[in-house]
Amino acid sequence: MFQAAAKTLSLSRGASFSIRRYCFKTPAKLRVSEAVSGAHLGANVKVQGWLRSVRPQKANLFLHVNDGSALQSLQVVASSELNDPLLTLGSAVEVTGTLRKSPHQKQPVELEADQIHVVGDCNPVDFPFKKKERHSLEYIRQFPHLRCRTNAFSSLLRIRSEATTAVHSYFKENGFVQIHTPVITSNDCEGAGELFRVEPSGPENEEGEKFFSVPAFLTVSGQLHLEVMSGAFSRVYTFGPTFRAENSQSRRHLAEFYMVEAEVSFTQSLEDLTKVMEDMFRSATEHVLAHCAADVDLFHKHVTPGHRVSPQGHLLFGCIIIHYYYLNLLFFYCWGCDLQTEHEKYLVKHCGNVPVFVTDYPYDLKPFYARDNQDHPKHTAAAVDLLVPGVGELCGGSLREERLDLLRARTGLEDTYSWYLDLRRFGSVPHGGFGLGFERFLQCILGVDNIKDVIAFPRFSHSCLL
Amino acid sequence: MFQAAAKTLSLSRGASFSIRRYCFKTPAKLRVSEAVSGAHLGANVKVQGWLRSVRPQKANLFLHVNDGSALQSLQVVASSELNDPLLTLGSAVEVTGTLRKSPHQKQPVELEADQIHVVGDCNPVDFPFKKKERHSLEYIRQFPHLRCRTNAFSSLLRIRSEATTAVHSYFKENGFVQIHTPVITSNDCEGAGELFRVEPSGPENEEGEKFFSVPAFLTVSGQLHLEVMSGAFSRVYTFGPTFRAENSQSRRHLAEFYMVEAEVSFTQSLEDLTKVMEDMFRSATEHVLAHCAADVDLFHKHVTPGHRVSPQGHLLFGCIIIHYYYLNLLFFYCWGCDLQTEHEKYLVKHCGNVPVFVTDYPYDLKPFYARDNQDHPKHTAAAVDLLVPGVGELCGGSLREERLDLLRARTGLEDTYSWYLDLRRFGSVPHGGFGLGFERFLQCILGVDNIKDVIAFPRFSHSCLL
Repeated sequence: MFQAAAKTLSLSRGASFSIRRYCFKTPAKLRVSEAVSGAHLGANVKVQGWLRSVRPQKANLFLHVNDGSALQSLQVVASSELNDPLLTLGSAVEVTGTLRKSPHQKQPVELEADQIHVVGDCNPVDFPFKKKERHSLEYIRQFPHLRCRTNAFSSLLRIRSEATTAVHSYFKENGFVQIHTPVITSNDCEGAGELFRVEPSGPENEEGEKFFSVPAFLTVSGQLHLEVMSGAFSRVYTFGPTFRAENSQSRRHLAEFYMVEAEVSFTQSLEDLTKVMEDMFRSATEHVLAHCAADVDLFHKHVTPGHRVSPQGHLLFGCIIIHYYYLNLLFFYCWGCDLQTEHEKYLVKHCGNVPVFVTDYPYDLKPFYARDNQDHPKHTAAAVDLLVPGVGELCGGSLREERLDLLRARTGLEDTYSWYLDLRRFGSVPHGGFGLGFERFLQCILGVDNIKDVIAFPRFSHSCLL
Repeated sequence: MFQAAAKTLSLSRGASFSIRRYCFKTPAKLRVSEAVSGAHLGANVKVQGWLRSVRPQKANLFLHVNDGSALQSLQVVASSELNDPLLTLGSAVEVTGTLRKSPHQKQPVELEADQIHVVGDCNPVDFPFKKKERHSLEYIRQFPHLRCRTNAFSSLLRIRSEATTAVHSYFKENGFVQIHTPVITSNDCEGAGELFRVEPSGPENEEGEKFFSVPAFLTVSGQLHLEVMSGAFSRVYTFGPTFRAENSQSRRHLAEFYMVEAEVSFTQSLEDLTKVMEDMFRSATEHVLAHCAADVDLFHKHVTPGHRVSPQGHLLFGCIIIHYYYLNLLFFYCWGCDLQTEHEKYLVKHCGNVPVFVTDYPYDLKPFYARDNQDHPKHTAAAVDLLVPGVGELCGGSLREERLDLLRARTGLEDTYSWYLDLRRFGSVPHGGFGLGFERFLQCILGVDNIKDVIAFPRFSHSCLL
């Protein structure tokens, strides 16, 4: 390597024209992803980023510079003379030099450095991540302000960003209009309890008057607001944060999490929904696997070894549809019992580890808006859950009760939800929708066990760091 | 028209083959945007939507059916025999028939109806929107659950959805990673006061224990969380709801509004930011004008007449950059005074109604994170606002103080923001960012005066409907 470097150096010295050209031209500023692409071989460039590894050898110094644009870092090769004690893991650098074909297979390109400037140092004693160590997700979770500087979590964040794009793309391509449903709301959707209340933090108003004049909460679902839109748009969706004040520190729950929710008008049956659910799930999964191959691979190889999702794999084969009624026969559940997480996981496994739709739940298990199947004596609602391997419930949806008289028969709605009844008074149409837990979707693709590891800043009971 | 219809009918009767073919084939279900595109002339189709107008004439009945897929409705022509008293403005219908070239210039295509089915009726006495009336934005704002059924507000929602796409596209194309910054946060960003506090709504915990163990608020900005990411990603952005408990019912403020925020690492000067701000503003504006031409046109012609934005128009010409210092000389402001809305609007007008960047504000006007220009005795901060015609301040941004010692010198940070100081301890880099008020961006493009008219469910003091 030393000889190779020396040879290149002497060659450069010989080629005075090219040296002069490079010396007097401002080097092009490239991002790491551009630099490693191989499109700029021979160019004099400037690259900026953070050191992911530092390997001083006798004659040469090897650095890996990463700027978040890709998992892959740029290998920098420099003469030992350019070494500096401040070149440590995590420090920020600016390197100028020439992009060369690398003699190593691992990276096709390396940067032969002329200059290395330490932009911001990083004391290795205080920095919580150490050289050559693979830190566990649990360990890095303790440092919410720094964990994006690890390979695993920066991969996660790129995957999450790309999965967000995938969701938007799917809906856009299928003619859905995106609605920004509100975070602050005066309705509690499912009467679910476990709500967060919102009040100004300042000193109480003198008369104890409420800011919004009514009690205001953080939304638990954008469904009812989407249903408003279902009276004018036949396809709408929303994608944003939702909230539950659940006193749980489990691996499955967050106080603030992201939901994808869609509502389709003029439905004929649950199949109109399961088709959208399956399509979106498949399309988003394929998109992520295609656009984040290296990042997903890092998870499957090193972070969650053993987990595999491939375009040919189980997640993308056909889904199975099972009526809740048959679950009853198959698994001896009591009629009217809700499925527990263990049931869900067992069921998916029993079905050969493919996604499973469970449909037509007992009517009494479902909220007021679920459409009555009027199939007495069974009495089910046109509701559906999508269960997926490893995670259990990923989506829940239903046809909505569009018949004013049936909805009205539910006590209490006339007072608190007169606006909701209005939607059925004026141009009501059969419609339905579903919600998908975005973090669970990521967990399902990546095989990540703890939901706190697939969101940038997890909020849960007793924890709201930063 | 009557003769034309009769003729078509008799022609069809003669062509028994084609009648049979259409009668026994399930008609293709089309969305209105597909039906009006002209790509399906002659096809037997089914269209579902809501009636935007009903015009019974002697021999024929004319309906306009809209399903939200486009501003344009599909004109349905039916024999008077198909009329039904339930066919009223706002009712939901399903129409089957044949798509024909229309004899009218206004719409290229019309649907000759075989069957009209009223899916959901709409009592015209109770329905707040009336036939042939153009309702004002103020009027429809009273009906947050129904206003999406007007042309103006459904156009607004399509524009808003497309503008959202535009923002995401710009950042994606320019290599930014999207970060979901949290809504619930334990920091108050600018110490701005006017915060909403978050608590579970249930009965108080017995020991009065807090859910998150610390006071928790709704975010006023994702900036500090983006800055966390700026230590590993050289380009990040966030786009989501932010909150201010401002006791204001003004046309310019909401308690919940959307912000686009971006952070760029390895900046050299404010120009690195103004370039991104200008590019994004221009790119998003062009995208909206190109993809929502009909909807934007509706606003410029009927809702906000006189307002114009064109790709050749003022908004897309070059921006002007003015140092705050010169404002002082030009307009006799007192040094150290913040610009008021009227100043901003006057300044933009004075500059020829183009977007204006005001840079390098007095240091003391800006929050702790703004980078000190160290230009005593003036003493300014590297901060910038983008002012645009009609709206005033659209964006605010700054380089962030990346130097640990200068940041530390600000009292109090060591205690409350030790994690923020950590970002400067480990691999700190020059960086900066900005926030754009998404609603103001829409107001600027559409000329809408009241911010409540560019968001689906406005929240402001004393109002949290639905």
